[in-house]
Amino acid sequence: MPKQKLNVAMIGAGFIAKAHSNAFQQVGRFFPTPFEFGLRVICARNQAKLEVMASHWGWQEVSTDWREIVSRKDVQVVDIAVPNALHGPIALAAAAAGKILLCEKPLAVSLEEAENMAKAAHHVPNLVWFNYRRVPAVAFAKKLIEEGRLGEAFHYRALYLNQSGNDPAKASGWRYQRAQAGSGATGDLLAHSIDTALYLNGPITQLFAMTRTFFPNRDVDDAVVLMCRFANGSMGTFEATRYGIGCRNRNAFEMNGSKGMVRFNLEDMNWLEFFDASEAPRFEGSRKIMVTGPDHPYWENFWKPGHIIGYEHTFIATLGDFLASLERKQPFHPNFDDAVAVQRVLDAVERSATARNWVSLV
Amino acid sequence: MPKQKLNVAMIGAGFIAKAHSNAFQQVGRFFPTPFEFGLRVICARNQAKLEVMASHWGWQEVSTDWREIVSRKDVQVVDIAVPNALHGPIALAAAAAGKILLCEKPLAVSLEEAENMAKAAHHVPNLVWFNYRRVPAVAFAKKLIEEGRLGEAFHYRALYLNQSGNDPAKASGWRYQRAQAGSGATGDLLAHSIDTALYLNGPITQLFAMTRTFFPNRDVDDAVVLMCRFANGSMGTFEATRYGIGCRNRNAFEMNGSKGMVRFNLEDMNWLEFFDASEAPRFEGSRKIMVTGPDHPYWENFWKPGHIIGYEHTFIATLGDFLASLERKQPFHPNFDDAVAVQRVLDAVERSATARNWVSLV
Amino acid sequence: MPKQKLNVAMIGAGFIAKAHSNAFQQVGRFFPTPFEFGLRVICARNQAKLEVMASHWGWQEVSTDWREIVSRKDVQVVDIAVPNALHGPIALAAAAAGKILLCEKPLAVSLEEAENMAKAAHHVPNLVWFNYRRVPAVAFAKKLIEEGRLGEAFHYRALYLNQSGNDPAKASGWRYQRAQAGSGATGDLLAHSIDTALYLNGPITQLFAMTRTFFPNRDVDDAVVLMCRFANGSMGTFEATRYGIGCRNRNAFEMNGSKGMVRFNLEDMNWLEFFDASEAPRFEGSRKIMVTGPDHPYWENFWKPGHIIGYEHTFIATLGDFLASLERKQPFHPNFDDAVAVQRVLDAVERSATARNWVSLV
Amino acid sequence: MPKQKLNVAMIGAGFIAKAHSNAFQQVGRFFPTPFEFGLRVICARNQAKLEVMASHWGWQEVSTDWREIVSRKDVQVVDIAVPNALHGPIALAAAAAGKILLCEKPLAVSLEEAENMAKAAHHVPNLVWFNYRRVPAVAFAKKLIEEGRLGEAFHYRALYLNQSGNDPAKASGWRYQRAQAGSGATGDLLAHSIDTALYLNGPITQLFAMTRTFFPNRDVDDAVVLMCRFANGSMGTFEATRYGIGCRNRNAFEMNGSKGMVRFNLEDMNWLEFFDASEAPRFEGSRKIMVTGPDHPYWENFWKPGHIIGYEHTFIATLGDFLASLERKQPFHPNFDDAVAVQRVLDAVERSATARNWVSLV
Repeated sequence: MPKQKLNVAMIGAGFIAKAHSNAFQQVGRFFPTPFEFGLRVICARNQAKLEVMASHWGWQEVSTDWREIVSRKDVQVVDIAVPNALHGPIALAAAAAGKILLCEKPLAVSLEEAENMAKAAHHVPNLVWFNYRRVPAVAFAKKLIEEGRLGEAFHYRALYLNQSGNDPAKASGWRYQRAQAGSGATGDLLAHSIDTALYLNGPITQLFAMTRTFFPNRDVDDAVVLMCRFANGSMGTFEATRYGIGCRNRNAFEMNGSKGMVRFNLEDMNWLEFFDASEAPRFEGSRKIMVTGPDHPYWENFWKPGHIIGYEHTFIATLGDFLASLERKQPFHPNFDDAVAVQRVLDAVERSATARNWVSLV
Repeated sequence: MPKQKLNVAMIGAGFIAKAHSNAFQQVGRFFPTPFEFGLRVICARNQAKLEVMASHWGWQEVSTDWREIVSRKDVQVVDIAVPNALHGPIALAAAAAGKILLCEKPLAVSLEEAENMAKAAHHVPNLVWFNYRRVPAVAFAKKLIEEGRLGEAFHYRALYLNQSGNDPAKASGWRYQRAQAGSGATGDLLAHSIDTALYLNGPITQLFAMTRTFFPNRDVDDAVVLMCRFANGSMGTFEATRYGIGCRNRNAFEMNGSKGMVRFNLEDMNWLEFFDASEAPRFEGSRKIMVTGPDHPYWENFWKPGHIIGYEHTFIATLGDFLASLERKQPFHPNFDDAVAVQRVLDAVERSATARNWVSLV
Repeated sequence: MPKQKLNVAMIGAGFIAKAHSNAFQQVGRFFPTPFEFGLRVICARNQAKLEVMASHWGWQEVSTDWREIVSRKDVQVVDIAVPNALHGPIALAAAAAGKILLCEKPLAVSLEEAENMAKAAHHVPNLVWFNYRRVPAVAFAKKLIEEGRLGEAFHYRALYLNQSGNDPAKASGWRYQRAQAGSGATGDLLAHSIDTALYLNGPITQLFAMTRTFFPNRDVDDAVVLMCRFANGSMGTFEATRYGIGCRNRNAFEMNGSKGMVRFNLEDMNWLEFFDASEAPRFEGSRKIMVTGPDHPYWENFWKPGHIIGYEHTFIATLGDFLASLERKQPFHPNFDDAVAVQRVLDAVERSATARNWVSLV
Repeated sequence: MPKQKLNVAMIGAGFIAKAHSNAFQQVGRFFPTPFEFGLRVICARNQAKLEVMASHWGWQEVSTDWREIVSRKDVQVVDIAVPNALHGPIALAAAAAGKILLCEKPLAVSLEEAENMAKAAHHVPNLVWFNYRRVPAVAFAKKLIEEGRLGEAFHYRALYLNQSGNDPAKASGWRYQRAQAGSGATGDLLAHSIDTALYLNGPITQLFAMTRTFFPNRDVDDAVVLMCRFANGSMGTFEATRYGIGCRNRNAFEMNGSKGMVRFNLEDMNWLEFFDASEAPRFEGSRKIMVTGPDHPYWENFWKPGHIIGYEHTFIATLGDFLASLERKQPFHPNFDDAVAVQRVLDAVERSATARNWVSLV
């Protein structure tokens, strides 16, 4: 049976666009699906860079005008992988044209814009690239929590530490400018931690935050710390920083509940630590589970037990699940609404940090 | 040359009194000193328990009346290892009698009391048992920081997690009652983290805190979270909890600076992770240093390189350094003044948690 | 400039054929090359399985007769991914037809056959899939050794432990039958360890081995242990087993030299532990390097620093380097000759285990 | 009830004599016992060193003539902590005098001597200081094995790696001379690994060994490698070296059985890794158990759960168990007979390495 073609227009040609392009190419290899992506057109401002990217990743056409391509007839999917400030205009235009929407995180540069985007996207299938939900170990943690294996939640703590902020060579990029990025570590790193937390531990009801900018004359935050209360009664702490010297990509969380603990670090993404408090005391110990084995999420999609996957597979699995939702005509998560929930927290973070006060989210 | 005898009156006969007794017995074996402790008298309310303790650990005499023994002529040192609420009365009486003062942490149940105690102790040698400063790995971290090997401090984060709070069997102990303990996780666990932080990273200028009690009808905090700003400009986060299911004694900290990182966990107390940002990028990596070797603090006192020490040695080393200070007639640290600095933070934590506001410490 | 097409005939349609298929598809994305693979035809006995495989991975044609396809005009490359006993016949036929040869490891079921294959392959570009040489961390270890950073080699030790042997469900597969596999753990697991060792530490001059079969009535070895002497004077120990209960895919090695140590485990393949003995004693410590960063092998090919790769990328990088060799018209390593060197060791292992004696390899 | 005094004559005043002295002083604090050690007399050649040692550790008297003190009426226990070549003469004399015998490992410099010593010791209580049996994690591993939690044993592997051999400063010590030490890494390091293996996994029936001396003109082995077969059918591999650059004191073992795995490293001696193969596949993972908790060996003797012990406690626990055996009038293990079993293996190692052949031990 021939596959149903979904032609993609990708807006953006940077690092993350490579990860997306790869996922479009690879998803069909690992996930059985009646759909097939066509890499129809890729759009960015720099023509030279664009052509290299197109030939390298198999984009059939290039364009430097996103406005033109988002409404093209031969395009069914618009994938937004540009600086944050452009997410809104592009998404609104593409939604108006009835396209399937895929958008990088954070969804928008303000809560209001995010809400408008979500409203506009309600009538089309949509996805936000919070790809780390599809790390098998994270999906496995979710399953353990749903099964009640952690019991009543007491603590949720997350770190996202890298050392990008202290690198003068990177300082002029769009991620370090408020006009383009909306925020610094908050939207770049904390957004991931918050999405994972909402996914695993449910809504946050109130929070308190502090931000800091270490780099001279930078108008976005280099670091953000927050404490919060979740609706389930547990306490949360989050720290995200671009000044986490010594850490390359430490996107980590742990959760203590009455019945157990889970612990994860993206740098060792094929592993999950799990502590089962119901063990006899002498057997108590955090076990290090290689989440690449029988009965683990996605293990049938990728390689054999013990044969690890990497960063790119989180995008592939995201897309695989998205296509399965599309096939079943059900909403996919995380979608624009989920991303609004994250944005609501980011917005509260900024308000709390400015007002130096608790902010309620309910 | 005969040693100068320092007769000790120990008030308290619980677990921590064992650790102190052991240290009094052992310090002379590992630390050359002109002093010698006499285990003169031990005091507690339970006579039976007291006698077992005395015979086991070599105390010459027992008593059930601390008021009588703190002023005895044949006693030079009073060691306070009782529930927190008694620290103040005993310390004041012993100070009035001119005794050398050793006191468990936290120093007092209120800042005011702590200040009074410190004032009273000014004319006598004094020590507070923040024993973890003497973990060789912690002392080594201190040295690295003093040498400037971390550069400008960006982040300091600390955890102290155990799972004692969720154990109904322990719920009736003095540590779980405000009248006796003053606070819960705050004084019990966070106090240690704060002392280490002030020692390694200097004063805290402002903080924001949240506390929680999970156990029904308990009048002390089970968990405390705080964020703060240090005088050196770095951001701090702390979490201390008795509901850290999965963690036996995870007293951990890490610090990111412009030139490097250190990371420590008491559960692996013979190791320090150190990251040197001046390494060529391809050699960047956190190195795991077994702090039991040449040129490490205390390595000449204890065993050979690679032969680890344990919990009890932190008390022994504390006492060893105390005696060396005594010999040089210099103040020892951490003393009552240092403990007041910790108490000032604990007090601010409580005020912030209650007022739900930032509290300034300067 | 249009790319030069290399049409591939793949013989085999099992798990490893998937990994190869993926690599053919992906190599051009990550490695700049003037060549382009065409997935021309895939061949196996099971027609149904074959068609699924072909449609899934993009093979244009299927065949059940390898003899016919290895000499087809429209095929330039023959990739052999079938049970070991078939490597020889296929390789000889393909070599006779002048095809580029890619062959799975171990090269053959006997040393004599391997030597014949290597002789036949001398006039065509050829490669053996000892893919773990291209783990970035392994390639980085190689570089450190070449730079003299380990100094004089004293010890090389390797483990390859998995738990496949104890699984009755797998017991009937070709890997567990001498007629098809030639050997058990020896060819399956030890072969990888030996290739890595020869690559990193040079030739083995003599060895002593012991093998064992735990499973009833199985005619291949389940476990093999060997000790050896390398030409550089260092001592070697190797253990490979399918009864390493508790280990999913622990392909590990470490090497102690006068100036340092390296340590690697495939289960954590993005990391290399490195110990630099020239450090001041107090800084001595094994550092854990995330080999996904600046100046690391292949880091420019794949993702950003700190964004890990997985199992499949070792095949992609192998192919990437192969195409670069092809472009420069230089021999690639590991090739059939390198695989003969491995086979010579495997042969000596079997002879030593049978004769219960040292066997010399020079 | 007054304790029964056991006066000790210690022969030796080096590092290990410190560890013993400490244990004599400390055992009564941690282990309830009707006995009490008197530190009667310590004997060594260097008078100055001897006096420092005596005053430091509380020995009442010093002597430079071991022959005189081993038969003294006021001595009940002779503790032998001198270079290996002296173990035999001292033990025989002390046994003849009817003293309780404590002897460092390896028991002797030859198997014949060891056998003679064991015969002579049969009528007196005796102990050999294979102290690592009393690491709580090792004792816990023993218990797991006895309970059948590993099932049928497949593999036992042990490493003992340090870097002492490459240090010219140490090269002249007695441990590096055959006349005094009997052997090098074999008696110094491998002996420990063998005792642990025999304790945990039972007798060795045949072995094959290779030794090496890296240091110029040294007449003992710097490194030893052996493979063996245990009576229970499992395969063993051992490596002990003083050229394990990068390792301070890596005395490690692991064991794979049909039902599970254990893994231990003395450098992290408060932890045991345990893998339970009966777990559902998705929960399979090696758990890291902090062996300082409820129901763990010795946990009631030392500190609270989560409060670690160190090197010295292995001697204290050895002595604690020895006194308990004495009280029950039962033989203690490991005793001279157990040490003969180790020596038999060491002897076979030497014979195998020389003859380059398998040696049978039954």
